[in-house]
Amino acid sequence: MPINVQFAAGPKLWPDYEAPLRAAFAEMGLNAAMAEEMAPETVDYIVFAPGGTITDFSPYTRCKAVLNLWAGVERIVTNPTLTQPLCRMVDPALTEGMVEYVTGHVLRHHLGLDRHILHQDGVWRHHLIPPIARERPVTILGLGALGAACGQALAALNFPVTGWSRTPKEVAGLRCLSGMDRLEAALEGAQIVVLLLPLTAETTDLLNARRIARMARGSFVINPGRGPLIDDGALIEALDAGQIAHATLDVFRTEPLPPDHPFWAHPHVTVTPHIAADTRAASAARVVAENIRRGEAGEPFLHLVDRARGY
Amino acid sequence: MPINVQFAAGPKLWPDYEAPLRAAFAEMGLNAAMAEEMAPETVDYIVFAPGGTITDFSPYTRCKAVLNLWAGVERIVTNPTLTQPLCRMVDPALTEGMVEYVTGHVLRHHLGLDRHILHQDGVWRHHLIPPIARERPVTILGLGALGAACGQALAALNFPVTGWSRTPKEVAGLRCLSGMDRLEAALEGAQIVVLLLPLTAETTDLLNARRIARMARGSFVINPGRGPLIDDGALIEALDAGQIAHATLDVFRTEPLPPDHPFWAHPHVTVTPHIAADTRAASAARVVAENIRRGEAGEPFLHLVDRARGY
Repeated sequence: MPINVQFAAGPKLWPDYEAPLRAAFAEMGLNAAMAEEMAPETVDYIVFAPGGTITDFSPYTRCKAVLNLWAGVERIVTNPTLTQPLCRMVDPALTEGMVEYVTGHVLRHHLGLDRHILHQDGVWRHHLIPPIARERPVTILGLGALGAACGQALAALNFPVTGWSRTPKEVAGLRCLSGMDRLEAALEGAQIVVLLLPLTAETTDLLNARRIARMARGSFVINPGRGPLIDDGALIEALDAGQIAHATLDVFRTEPLPPDHPFWAHPHVTVTPHIAADTRAASAARVVAENIRRGEAGEPFLHLVDRARGY
Repeated sequence: MPINVQFAAGPKLWPDYEAPLRAAFAEMGLNAAMAEEMAPETVDYIVFAPGGTITDFSPYTRCKAVLNLWAGVERIVTNPTLTQPLCRMVDPALTEGMVEYVTGHVLRHHLGLDRHILHQDGVWRHHLIPPIARERPVTILGLGALGAACGQALAALNFPVTGWSRTPKEVAGLRCLSGMDRLEAALEGAQIVVLLLPLTAETTDLLNARRIARMARGSFVINPGRGPLIDDGALIEALDAGQIAHATLDVFRTEPLPPDHPFWAHPHVTVTPHIAADTRAASAARVVAENIRRGEAGEPFLHLVDRARGY
């Protein structure tokens, strides 16, 4: 009997994911039947992304797991009909893409690249020698798979990196602080702050005016995590006051960011269109297939979401 | 008797270097007397940079070494009066600064950052997902201290890195090729090429039209090495033809680059004002002091220039 896999990630993703998933199932030796529509009571696994067709999980009575295609699960984890195990995506290519985005924008702000990119005006500004990385403290908020990998890549370039997480974590090469009572200490004097936290009730508006004030004057904010982690009004005030020199934002409360949103026009904000880390079909498909193999073998799932924590 | 050190690097550098050099001598336990002017026949060591006062080294009859403050020695190595040992500067902070510049600009071109920095126009271009680094071959021309360090930093970010040097070298994590007959193989299909070669008769105009043609179409050139390594006319033709998508240049045949030079106005050239790697006074002073200590102890000098090779 084949393993029934319903692809409930929406018709737009089906053309990108169908062939990689079938290839990964075959590679893993799984006899899987996959379709976009299936009788709910026959489904063994659901491959999920917001924008798909399922809103009520209760008819999926024999479903062993819901396998989310993205790292963020805030749009599904609160669904009261979801009683099945839920797994997040931790895609190695997604992690690599995120490390590249974060390292690229940290170096861009560290080196002051915008000055040169925007002002090719014939003036030889030789006095603009940036400090070296070991003189530029960076703080990463969030030490999950993405935050830890980004922190270590920056530490390898000699940036002094502080990592902060809600619950205690140790990441080699980073100064690690944890708990809400240590958040301001983690931000103290930071010249570059990167947000890579999951979105929960507790992390909403986490970077607010009081905490921004702890950062170094003229510092930089990079948010490739989730839009609502930042109090947008407080950020704009800090940008206008020079407390924050520049913000590079990849995620927003509303996406696509509306064309008339003040972030687009602000001279010290760079909007990028949620590209910091996209799940890559081939490597994500292998993670999905591995979790189905584990489910069939009675092994624990990878990247299982803790429903109480919300990620 | 004190060790006599003449600071012959020009009056502009004296205020930056005097205190760090005196501190480094003291740290190293050297009884050194340093001044900008000294009777040539009394001088034990010369701290040198172009723009200083010495053009004739022959009266410096007891001088044990000329210690250059910069990595490049092309403006002194051909001086026929120089018979004393000549040492280049290999400054750890200079190497770090170069790694940061090269990694920053490689990631900038890899991620297509300019698009976002230059076009904050309200258009949500979500389709612009860059490839990941492991799909982006990079070639480093030159595997000295700077080229090797840059290549390894890029390899740590998963870029497939080919390193090319005139004479055979092995650098862990890089595919290493050597010799003029392997130069075109090293450039074949490269999407980003970084020039970090010393300037010699053999490396002048090294990146010419024929070799540019071996790179991938739409590739990037980054030159933080020496201006004349590139045939400027061939580069502009390749930029206009789209063979090279963008060139980021930090060094030029004439510096400062004249305001009317076509590089400034070219839409696909970024000029930076020779800032990729500046010697930092504190760490450079320690290298100078260490070489004087070695000279006094009869130990071999660090970073001794091979006069025949020219670097």
